[in-house]
Amino acid sequence: MNKVNINQKLALFEEHWNPKIVGELNGQHVKLAKLKGEFVWHTHDKEDELFYVISGNLKIEFKDHTVNLGPNEFIIIPRGVEHKPVAKDEVSVMLFEPASTVNTGNTKSNFTKEDLETL
Amino acid sequence: MNKVNINQKLALFEEHWNPKIVGELNGQHVKLAKLKGEFVWHTHDKEDELFYVISGNLKIEFKDHTVNLGPNEFIIIPRGVEHKPVAKDEVSVMLFEPASTVNTGNTKSNFTKEDLETL
Repeated sequence: MNKVNINQKLALFEEHWNPKIVGELNGQHVKLAKLKGEFVWHTHDKEDELFYVISGNLKIEFKDHTVNLGPNEFIIIPRGVEHKPVAKDEVSVMLFEPASTVNTGNTKSNFTKEDLETL
Repeated sequence: MNKVNINQKLALFEEHWNPKIVGELNGQHVKLAKLKGEFVWHTHDKEDELFYVISGNLKIEFKDHTVNLGPNEFIIIPRGVEHKPVAKDEVSVMLFEPASTVNTGNTKSNFTKEDLETL
């Protein structure tokens, strides 16, 4: 049973939009990701998704409004709600979501990552 | 769909060992708690539990070793593993765990909190 140091794990990778698994509990994954630029619009039909910002500023666009998140802020996006993350500058986030979650949900694209690395 | 600012939520309460619910997703709760002093030894028979340290230094004692956690570090305690959190000075933590989780697990004590407040 080892502790996980978020900053040590974030130092292990540089690529954007490719979440890394850093913990698993109760069928859920804890993931870390670095984001920069605009992601794709997508929906998760069966999974609620939590974005927790470690560093930087993240914009989550919804069809009718936008939420801006800074460090130590999180948002829970309920299943079925279409959203698009946008990071003008690099953002580091922690994600908490069911192990079944695919990053682009129901939208297949070049951003889709099916087999995530565990750090 | 509102964001949650951790520091704003932590400013809303002072008591120790009384987790507050700040989010719910996929049958899991996100909780915030302030800890100070020694908790009771306990086990969660059916729930894995995640402690993420926001501020301060938290010691988690296990029967055969101890883990020290600082800010931006977390540990996942698998179900069935006896543990005791100890905070020499005040610590603020975020918890991820199933909505069914009782803070003292299988150990009823004065620390037991059955109906948690949602902030």
